[in-house]
Amino acid sequence: MTTDSSTPPKGTLIIIGGHEDKEGRRGILKEVARHLHGGKLVVATVASHEPEGYFESYQKAFEPLGVTDLTELYVENRADTLNEEKLQSLDEATGVFFSGGDQLRITSQIANTPVEAKIRALYEKGGVIAGTSAGASVMCETMLVKGASGESYRIGDLRMAPGLGLIRGVIIDQHFGERGRIGRLLGAVAHNPRVLGIGIDENTAIVVQGDTFSVIGEGAVYIADASGVTYSNLVEARRDRPLSLYDVRLHVLSHGDTFDLVKRRPHEAGDLETSQALEAAEC
Amino acid sequence: MTTDSSTPPKGTLIIIGGHEDKEGRRGILKEVARHLHGGKLVVATVASHEPEGYFESYQKAFEPLGVTDLTELYVENRADTLNEEKLQSLDEATGVFFSGGDQLRITSQIANTPVEAKIRALYEKGGVIAGTSAGASVMCETMLVKGASGESYRIGDLRMAPGLGLIRGVIIDQHFGERGRIGRLLGAVAHNPRVLGIGIDENTAIVVQGDTFSVIGEGAVYIADASGVTYSNLVEARRDRPLSLYDVRLHVLSHGDTFDLVKRRPHEAGDLETSQALEAAEC
Repeated sequence: MTTDSSTPPKGTLIIIGGHEDKEGRRGILKEVARHLHGGKLVVATVASHEPEGYFESYQKAFEPLGVTDLTELYVENRADTLNEEKLQSLDEATGVFFSGGDQLRITSQIANTPVEAKIRALYEKGGVIAGTSAGASVMCETMLVKGASGESYRIGDLRMAPGLGLIRGVIIDQHFGERGRIGRLLGAVAHNPRVLGIGIDENTAIVVQGDTFSVIGEGAVYIADASGVTYSNLVEARRDRPLSLYDVRLHVLSHGDTFDLVKRRPHEAGDLETSQALEAAEC
Repeated sequence: MTTDSSTPPKGTLIIIGGHEDKEGRRGILKEVARHLHGGKLVVATVASHEPEGYFESYQKAFEPLGVTDLTELYVENRADTLNEEKLQSLDEATGVFFSGGDQLRITSQIANTPVEAKIRALYEKGGVIAGTSAGASVMCETMLVKGASGESYRIGDLRMAPGLGLIRGVIIDQHFGERGRIGRLLGAVAHNPRVLGIGIDENTAIVVQGDTFSVIGEGAVYIADASGVTYSNLVEARRDRPLSLYDVRLHVLSHGDTFDLVKRRPHEAGDLETSQALEAAEC
């Protein structure tokens, strides 16, 4: 059930940092609507332990945007993923929207089931998969599950788990600026500098197509690139000691900015050599 | 009344991110005590609009550390800075400790007065000048006065003002991880990449001597080096739009780490070329 890397998915991911506007301009939901092309949207409330009301709030928010064909997908337990009606709703859909809650509910209940297979197939053939908050984190191969907000990262204070893996080579955190999560995102990338850290503010999203994403919304998106890190105390330091991490490259992106995930560069930036030459210049 | 740059100050700055431990291990206050060498400490509560209780809490905290010769320095208004008794207490001191409050109270009331001149002279001849929270911010040439915490920086949303200038070429923010201030620190350095951004967590401090500082305490210290920045929308974007800023070099330092302010490098790090070579390597 893994994505065959020889055939890149044709779909779009819309990864939202939580608290997307549902009553005002609704810029992010409009972007979701645009990618539906008038088709059916499945609102997957499976991240929630108590899903009541979630679907209705999205129904109300999407209706004025012309998205009137919505179905709720809730999965109480893994046996539910065999339900014919649920699977049929996914067959008819052009998009899936994961609401917030607990990312572990999504993976533990739908990973490696027919529901997940249909969502993946939809993405591969060109559908849009959106997710907010927990629904954003779950997109990654390795996802952040738990870690302190509003403080610097302490060794050992982070729980990660395998995610749905719809986007590769990145680890995503949400409610980013609002909850002061730079510490835990740096903690995450310190574990493996191959992985690019992406922190997404509330009411802000990245729209991923192929190897590029663009930023939409009201806040910022932070990219922590640890590929040039020269020192970290991650494995030497005792548990609960604060992390030391030198030479992270950090980008802050806002509405309209785009980013190349292969080159690890913002598109409007000069090349890496320019940045390095500026740094090396004697001033 | 400016420091003569041809004769570097012989003193020590202890710049604290706020909420230093006053009842437990008191590691930071111990460091202040160590630099007093048994001498007198002036606790400057001038940052506070209502200074009652500040001095007593420091008296109680310092006493078990062997610092028993303490005087309070409060300045209600600029005329107070001519008071002979206050000036004499500074003549006898080996250290000054600025408590928290409003950094603008410190600068507006004591800058360019005999009080400031005596504090500067004490620093130049080898005394210790400590400051916490507002007392930390005020150390810089240009200090942060106000800006939103817990969100990304929006163009225009930052108030800066001239500080005491005891440390040059840096801009300091405090309560850093706890209040989610990475956004506003990046906003500050975007204004002028010459200035190094230093964000200090609570119960954490940098101890500055000459061109080097070391980190002590329970949290982390963030260094945002914008010298390699390739793009920023600071002047192009409309007010209140989020900042875009590409290619910031970020270091996270913790207890025991040291930093060279001239080379802009953590001491344990490889050199800049190593970091750049790692980044440029095809993986």
